[in-house]
Amino acid sequence: MISMVFETKPSSFADQVYGRILDEILSGAFAPGSRLPGENDLSETFGVSRPVVRQALARLRVDGLVEARRGSGTYVLSRPSDNLTDVTSLTDVSRFLRYQELRLSIEGEAAALAAERRTEKALSDIVRAHEHFAQQIGHGTFDAESDRTFHLAILDATGNEFFRGALEGNGVVLSDFMGISLSITRTGSTDRARKVVSEHTDIVEAIRKRDAVWARAAMELHIIHARRRLTDRTLDP
Amino acid sequence: MISMVFETKPSSFADQVYGRILDEILSGAFAPGSRLPGENDLSETFGVSRPVVRQALARLRVDGLVEARRGSGTYVLSRPSDNLTDVTSLTDVSRFLRYQELRLSIEGEAAALAAERRTEKALSDIVRAHEHFAQQIGHGTFDAESDRTFHLAILDATGNEFFRGALEGNGVVLSDFMGISLSITRTGSTDRARKVVSEHTDIVEAIRKRDAVWARAAMELHIIHARRRLTDRTLDP
Amino acid sequence: MISMVFETKPSSFADQVYGRILDEILSGAFAPGSRLPGENDLSETFGVSRPVVRQALARLRVDGLVEARRGSGTYVLSRPSDNLTDVTSLTDVSRFLRYQELRLSIEGEAAALAAERRTEKALSDIVRAHEHFAQQIGHGTFDAESDRTFHLAILDATGNEFFRGALEGNGVVLSDFMGISLSITRTGSTDRARKVVSEHTDIVEAIRKRDAVWARAAMELHIIHARRRLTDRTLDP
Amino acid sequence: MISMVFETKPSSFADQVYGRILDEILSGAFAPGSRLPGENDLSETFGVSRPVVRQALARLRVDGLVEARRGSGTYVLSRPSDNLTDVTSLTDVSRFLRYQELRLSIEGEAAALAAERRTEKALSDIVRAHEHFAQQIGHGTFDAESDRTFHLAILDATGNEFFRGALEGNGVVLSDFMGISLSITRTGSTDRARKVVSEHTDIVEAIRKRDAVWARAAMELHIIHARRRLTDRTLDP
Repeated sequence: MISMVFETKPSSFADQVYGRILDEILSGAFAPGSRLPGENDLSETFGVSRPVVRQALARLRVDGLVEARRGSGTYVLSRPSDNLTDVTSLTDVSRFLRYQELRLSIEGEAAALAAERRTEKALSDIVRAHEHFAQQIGHGTFDAESDRTFHLAILDATGNEFFRGALEGNGVVLSDFMGISLSITRTGSTDRARKVVSEHTDIVEAIRKRDAVWARAAMELHIIHARRRLTDRTLDP
Repeated sequence: MISMVFETKPSSFADQVYGRILDEILSGAFAPGSRLPGENDLSETFGVSRPVVRQALARLRVDGLVEARRGSGTYVLSRPSDNLTDVTSLTDVSRFLRYQELRLSIEGEAAALAAERRTEKALSDIVRAHEHFAQQIGHGTFDAESDRTFHLAILDATGNEFFRGALEGNGVVLSDFMGISLSITRTGSTDRARKVVSEHTDIVEAIRKRDAVWARAAMELHIIHARRRLTDRTLDP
Repeated sequence: MISMVFETKPSSFADQVYGRILDEILSGAFAPGSRLPGENDLSETFGVSRPVVRQALARLRVDGLVEARRGSGTYVLSRPSDNLTDVTSLTDVSRFLRYQELRLSIEGEAAALAAERRTEKALSDIVRAHEHFAQQIGHGTFDAESDRTFHLAILDATGNEFFRGALEGNGVVLSDFMGISLSITRTGSTDRARKVVSEHTDIVEAIRKRDAVWARAAMELHIIHARRRLTDRTLDP
Repeated sequence: MISMVFETKPSSFADQVYGRILDEILSGAFAPGSRLPGENDLSETFGVSRPVVRQALARLRVDGLVEARRGSGTYVLSRPSDNLTDVTSLTDVSRFLRYQELRLSIEGEAAALAAERRTEKALSDIVRAHEHFAQQIGHGTFDAESDRTFHLAILDATGNEFFRGALEGNGVVLSDFMGISLSITRTGSTDRARKVVSEHTDIVEAIRKRDAVWARAAMELHIIHARRRLTDRTLDP
């Protein structure tokens, strides 16, 4: 199901180099705290131009996997969870994280608007989707489709149909990417699953209380945590 | 060309009621400062249910055309430019404004990311599009396609292909809606056209200087002004 | 110690009316879901002018205790924790919540800047303060001064001395207000105390990873939760 | 009068090094586009430790005067207006810019809250202050006290007295710093003065129309422009 998302165009060179460096970080060959080879070396190793290497490094920085220290080079910051490789191809991780970046921008705003404008009907749609998802998690089931229903109910509570269209369209469906997050959660601890549900509860309370500032912060933190859970094994509770 | 956008689905009842109230505001029948008829009266007049009336009123409030005074009713705030009716059907105005709401969320964030990450190549694409548009405006030409190229160049400078996809897709193209804004600008004063160009210049400078906070504020204000220029004739400089 | 904050000027009429309505909500006389008396009645009951009543109601709305329903009146939304009256005078609650509003604006931005600019020294100051506070909570001690040290360490990590000055000065010290929050937490469940520590941990991780967006959202949500824990007994985990 | 602000504590080493590098940029010795000497060289030249040099460079970057290029060094970005030296001591420029950073955070939020909550009385205070300042500018007078009155009226329209206290206190008064901005504006072109007034007008319109998003963006851009007008001579219209 996940593959659908990635059929639209072949992985860019930068995504491939990103995937190969990520592979070395995952295997522990590039350990947290150690310095990556220089741009010239990486460019030779992977047989690509330096701009492509730079683009891959830029994304790894944005994703919080490496950090540039001024005048010194690029250092590994964190090592993702092992089971990342079980759930998706590494060249897809970069695309996943870019999609999360878009979600952060759109869903934070949508949650705020939903808090301001939600009707009773819209609230009950959100609550029902929330309870369904929480029940499934309680039974050990991680269903991307239920997670998607919850997030779409919030997008729709804005009363602005363009918000849903901004996240889904052009062959992309929210649940494709959620599959990756939930797989990480499933293979993680029970605590992690409980944390996801508790983040959803917080978002629902904010929208119920019509508190736009709360709703925005709660949604943003939820999406940021999802991204971090993927790229950093130490964040497992 | 504009009609393309609106073929996808018929206008909702709320959009139609929105359009009819807007028509009365435009004609001056509902003048700025005066009170709108109550929900019951509007519901009877237009032959729709009260929830539909409430939805239309909610959108008029969000769009800054009317304001609710607690315990007193709904009052007209501003009267849009006459030539609004020349450029689009009134039931489309609400959809246009909802699209602007999405743009505000996505393009503000995109401008900030573009400022942080832009390559020299991406900057020169932005500058070229900006200069082309400014030249056209200088010659009295208002080309939605040039405006679109400028905004897309900024979306692409994020290095995240999902930002462009969020604004265009599902049969919607940025320039369809821009056509409405530019028509208003064209039929307006020269000062108004100069102001649009000067706002673009500000955005370009922010991205050139890699100042994300500046880029976000400048882009947001640009989109807010575009919305306000449409709904308020007194904002013409 | 808390009284210090409030010596500077006598409570305004609006704060006093706020306190008296809050008292009725606390006692259950005005229950969640019920409608408050109209402005005229409240004005007569308390012997103050209608503008003063309106100001008090406006603050109760902002604080999430009541909600205005269009054309219908003002309804009670939530009932604060009983022990609110043990820890502070009710006319002070409004001032406390206004101070939290300022904190939201300043500390969210400060956390983002701290994530971007923190030196190793600044990070270790933050971590030390965090561990000290967490240890105390672990031993059942709730020390406003330790909480203050943690938050000030983040303000100082911005490298901008004006951030600390904006929160403390004019006779106000961060810990005075924190005393109120912590008292509520102390008299609450152990879960509540653990939640405060876990929110601090999240902020520290965001600053450690130099993730400004994460740091801002985590700090904002922490302050919003503190406000909500005060005004809503149902939010106790 | 400006000196008052800076009497509270002697300039830090970092501020002094900042001032001396800024002096070289102003004189043209370090021209836009050229590379600054390395940290070691600057440390020797100024007789201070490398951490102090790094702190000064970090602030110059934040202020948009220089930019770090990865693996290459620090380059001069822009050259401030000559008359900067007429109005303030160079070691004070850094403090001024840090104060602007605080203003950005507080006044953006305050403008949004003012738009949501302003009474008719609060609006008329803002409008009167605005008209007074605009008239003075029209007569060629640049009065920091009038500018301060305008900004304080907006802070007070939040109904939250802590916002004013956050900007003024601890011996700092808003107008001290405004003196610097207005001096730059006065010695600049008439166009620049007109631009400041037009930015104030935009903020007033946003608050009048109760549009919080507009008010925030307009206020933020106003403060960002003030900072940029100080540090970049090419931004003069």
